[in-house]
Amino acid sequence: MPLEPSRTLIAIPNPHAGRDYEVRCESPEFTCLCPITGQPDFATVTVVYRPGPSIIELKSLKQYLWSYRNEGAFHEDVTNRILDDIVTAVEPRHLTVRTDWLVRGGIHTVVEASHP
Amino acid sequence: MPLEPSRTLIAIPNPHAGRDYEVRCESPEFTCLCPITGQPDFATVTVVYRPGPSIIELKSLKQYLWSYRNEGAFHEDVTNRILDDIVTAVEPRHLTVRTDWLVRGGIHTVVEASHP
Amino acid sequence: MPLEPSRTLIAIPNPHAGRDYEVRCESPEFTCLCPITGQPDFATVTVVYRPGPSIIELKSLKQYLWSYRNEGAFHEDVTNRILDDIVTAVEPRHLTVRTDWLVRGGIHTVVEASHP
Amino acid sequence: MPLEPSRTLIAIPNPHAGRDYEVRCESPEFTCLCPITGQPDFATVTVVYRPGPSIIELKSLKQYLWSYRNEGAFHEDVTNRILDDIVTAVEPRHLTVRTDWLVRGGIHTVVEASHP
Amino acid sequence: MPLEPSRTLIAIPNPHAGRDYEVRCESPEFTCLCPITGQPDFATVTVVYRPGPSIIELKSLKQYLWSYRNEGAFHEDVTNRILDDIVTAVEPRHLTVRTDWLVRGGIHTVVEASHP
Amino acid sequence: MPLEPSRTLIAIPNPHAGRDYEVRCESPEFTCLCPITGQPDFATVTVVYRPGPSIIELKSLKQYLWSYRNEGAFHEDVTNRILDDIVTAVEPRHLTVRTDWLVRGGIHTVVEASHP
Amino acid sequence: MPLEPSRTLIAIPNPHAGRDYEVRCESPEFTCLCPITGQPDFATVTVVYRPGPSIIELKSLKQYLWSYRNEGAFHEDVTNRILDDIVTAVEPRHLTVRTDWLVRGGIHTVVEASHP
Amino acid sequence: MPLEPSRTLIAIPNPHAGRDYEVRCESPEFTCLCPITGQPDFATVTVVYRPGPSIIELKSLKQYLWSYRNEGAFHEDVTNRILDDIVTAVEPRHLTVRTDWLVRGGIHTVVEASHP
Amino acid sequence: MPLEPSRTLIAIPNPHAGRDYEVRCESPEFTCLCPITGQPDFATVTVVYRPGPSIIELKSLKQYLWSYRNEGAFHEDVTNRILDDIVTAVEPRHLTVRTDWLVRGGIHTVVEASHP
Amino acid sequence: MPLEPSRTLIAIPNPHAGRDYEVRCESPEFTCLCPITGQPDFATVTVVYRPGPSIIELKSLKQYLWSYRNEGAFHEDVTNRILDDIVTAVEPRHLTVRTDWLVRGGIHTVVEASHP
Repeated sequence: MPLEPSRTLIAIPNPHAGRDYEVRCESPEFTCLCPITGQPDFATVTVVYRPGPSIIELKSLKQYLWSYRNEGAFHEDVTNRILDDIVTAVEPRHLTVRTDWLVRGGIHTVVEASHP
Repeated sequence: MPLEPSRTLIAIPNPHAGRDYEVRCESPEFTCLCPITGQPDFATVTVVYRPGPSIIELKSLKQYLWSYRNEGAFHEDVTNRILDDIVTAVEPRHLTVRTDWLVRGGIHTVVEASHP
Repeated sequence: MPLEPSRTLIAIPNPHAGRDYEVRCESPEFTCLCPITGQPDFATVTVVYRPGPSIIELKSLKQYLWSYRNEGAFHEDVTNRILDDIVTAVEPRHLTVRTDWLVRGGIHTVVEASHP
Repeated sequence: MPLEPSRTLIAIPNPHAGRDYEVRCESPEFTCLCPITGQPDFATVTVVYRPGPSIIELKSLKQYLWSYRNEGAFHEDVTNRILDDIVTAVEPRHLTVRTDWLVRGGIHTVVEASHP
Repeated sequence: MPLEPSRTLIAIPNPHAGRDYEVRCESPEFTCLCPITGQPDFATVTVVYRPGPSIIELKSLKQYLWSYRNEGAFHEDVTNRILDDIVTAVEPRHLTVRTDWLVRGGIHTVVEASHP
Repeated sequence: MPLEPSRTLIAIPNPHAGRDYEVRCESPEFTCLCPITGQPDFATVTVVYRPGPSIIELKSLKQYLWSYRNEGAFHEDVTNRILDDIVTAVEPRHLTVRTDWLVRGGIHTVVEASHP
Repeated sequence: MPLEPSRTLIAIPNPHAGRDYEVRCESPEFTCLCPITGQPDFATVTVVYRPGPSIIELKSLKQYLWSYRNEGAFHEDVTNRILDDIVTAVEPRHLTVRTDWLVRGGIHTVVEASHP
Repeated sequence: MPLEPSRTLIAIPNPHAGRDYEVRCESPEFTCLCPITGQPDFATVTVVYRPGPSIIELKSLKQYLWSYRNEGAFHEDVTNRILDDIVTAVEPRHLTVRTDWLVRGGIHTVVEASHP
Repeated sequence: MPLEPSRTLIAIPNPHAGRDYEVRCESPEFTCLCPITGQPDFATVTVVYRPGPSIIELKSLKQYLWSYRNEGAFHEDVTNRILDDIVTAVEPRHLTVRTDWLVRGGIHTVVEASHP
Repeated sequence: MPLEPSRTLIAIPNPHAGRDYEVRCESPEFTCLCPITGQPDFATVTVVYRPGPSIIELKSLKQYLWSYRNEGAFHEDVTNRILDDIVTAVEPRHLTVRTDWLVRGGIHTVVEASHP
């Protein structure tokens, strides 16, 4: 019986908010479901951001990514939704989200979106 | 809403049952849940067998592997269970199942079992 | 007896048309015929685009790429034709098509075209 | 319009038939069709043999592999058929045929058969 | 202030004790001190065993490996001590411990010991 | 019993201070403790700088990096602290510090900060 | 007895001359002779161009590269001569020629020239 | 104008003839001509031997390999001829010659012969 | 007894002095001594230049690099000295010298300097 | 001015002499001189042994390898001499010495000798 994972990203104060620096978090453990067939899809998610007032608490990022496990999601859409959720949570100076999906129909797909 | 995946492995007649040859199937798309914490685990599953009277129908193998998605399973146990299920389904001359798990607690674990 | 594959690329509405983001699709499964000798050629096709009003439906992209299987096509020409067809189908903000061909005559060839 | 490729493997006399040596030929350019769906499959074919009275003429091997392009063939079956055809053509001391298929349904399959 | 890590390896019953199978655990997170200079050394530790009555609980393995952090240990000695401790804890059918050390004095050292 | 490592970075005069050149130092031997759980973390630290009046004495850099071994440090914070300490010690024309951390919770994190 | 290879590069009309696109051809099969010692040298030649009115016919490129086989040629000189010959033959919008030579005297040399 | 390379392999006395040890020499600089088309072929040649009374003088091996530059040679034949010539020259305890050829007709070929 | 290597870099006239092109020479065979401990250090030296009136004669570059074998040299200093010597010898349009040193004290160091 | 390196390998008592285990030491920092031309050669030396009564003290191994720096040595001879010296120093149960030399004359050479 799975955990009820949280979709809440926790923001913690940036300990060096005066400096424009970069944080990159990469997880090969993202999975969701195809909204049409119900079959699972798998991706590596990479989040690269330059923190503003807050940084992302890593445990909450892990749980946020898990929360898509039993949800239907198109590749292009879910990438943009993750982007929007991180922007809302930590107001970064800059953010890029990239999702790199395992092969479907002989095609390897990568989606990348940035803010602002 | 996920598919209700099947745990039934379909056997089809071996077209060259008189020859002792080898088939290897590898999928990086295995995921199950930790029975203690409920958190997801991820593995690449490799099945290597020398077919007897039957070969494994690949679509049923795909669905069989999906069927663990929301089930609790220890690394060592699930590897042996997959082995047992394939033995029952296709009665191979020889079979090895290897599961190669993404890092937990700084440790990368691989489990490998064979029959007979 | 082969499928009669479709050369129609299906466009679906871009779920985040207000954002300038990138999609990359790569398939090592492209094959066509040499227009001079009739011998098969093989390529990996990479499509990188920044969607406008539409995104490419992946199954139709798969079938589109298959549709060259029994058609004669020069490397430079086919790359530009794929570019033109995708531009027509989904009107991307920007598009690059790259074809990376298996060795012929000791020469490894890559062709890359972009729009606009 | 494709060539009408030949399924005839040409044998040429082994120039050093008194010595037991090994020849390995590998081609990433094998494609056939799924007998059920009619969709194309792609494989790298590796032929390893210790020649007996004859060696395989390479151009005929190239054309032999092309000849499956528009034919339906299951992975396990086609591997054994290539094995049988080479045994008939050149009577090797020993032969192994391995086919390594691009991913279908998230599963990467390799089939390997030997004679004798 | 560091945790007081435990040097106790926890054994849990082997769920498939009737079968002779293999478990491999690899951690790049081993560090100890040079007994002569007090300077830190770093190694990747690989444990490969065929379980007998028990398997190693992974969290206790993680803590066991941490427990060397502030202890002096020669390369050859610590490898054999880890081997002895795992033999005592889980009585494996067979066990190999390998330690692969980062460069010292331009020399890259690997030590490997087995039981029985 | 560990050495009492020094946190003092030693500056030595730049032998070619009139030229704007680059020095890169990379060490996979950085370890500190998680401030919340007390558990060890491991990182590869890369320091890239264009020297001003001084260059960093390498032995002191080695000891400086060791000095975090038994200290609690968040990923983002420690990266910025190393940056600040090197700026103070050698007043570089430009400096980048990157820390690349071993996986925790399925997430691989990299932090990079620059001055000025 | 070798073929008398041709040094004539054949130009064929660019099928998409209105678009500024790129073609890359790479061959590891270049060999010439050291003008001083007469000993053979070996290089991988890479030609990257953006076609103008014409594209290079690949078979003639293969033969052009062969034509240096028994000719003395310094690394820097031959690279520039290939550049000049391709410019003359196909009048590209832009062209880069790179030669990457196997080790001589412990030194690995690469020469790269561009036009315009 | 090419050197007239020597086909004479020079043997020098084995300085440790009482011990059965191994020497491996690998050169990516072998080229000869196709006996049918006159076109050049390229191979990496690997010689592995356990010396008897003599070892191979390396400069003469280099010149021996060059001597095939303008000679027609089938893959299988030339491999066995190199084997025979080395056996005659240095009477090794054991010898393996492997030739690994650049792709022709989409096929990568490797030939390996041993003595005794 | 070692050769008395020459520290003189020989310049030869640039055969295509009218074109701004690039030459890269890389040697993994550089060794000198630590000026403090007298212990050997090892580096790969990469020289990238755009020739002016002259190019570097490769044999003299080989001997120039050897000439440091028994000389004490700090990493930062020797990189700048090689740069100065090449500038003096061949007056390049642009030159970069990079030295990439084997690990000392767990730290991998790279130094890179350019002119002008 | 170089150190006067020691050719004495120091043996220290094997802390687990009752067990037959393996130690592997690899150094890319070996250099000696060609006895004919006086030019430097470079090799990676790998020592693999199963200790008997003693293990090799690593600092003395480092200095032993340095001691060849200004000495003439043929590839085959020096490999066997290192083997003999280690056998004399630590009386291993089994020992293999492998030397892997940088390219000379387009040939990459590896020598491997074992005792007993």
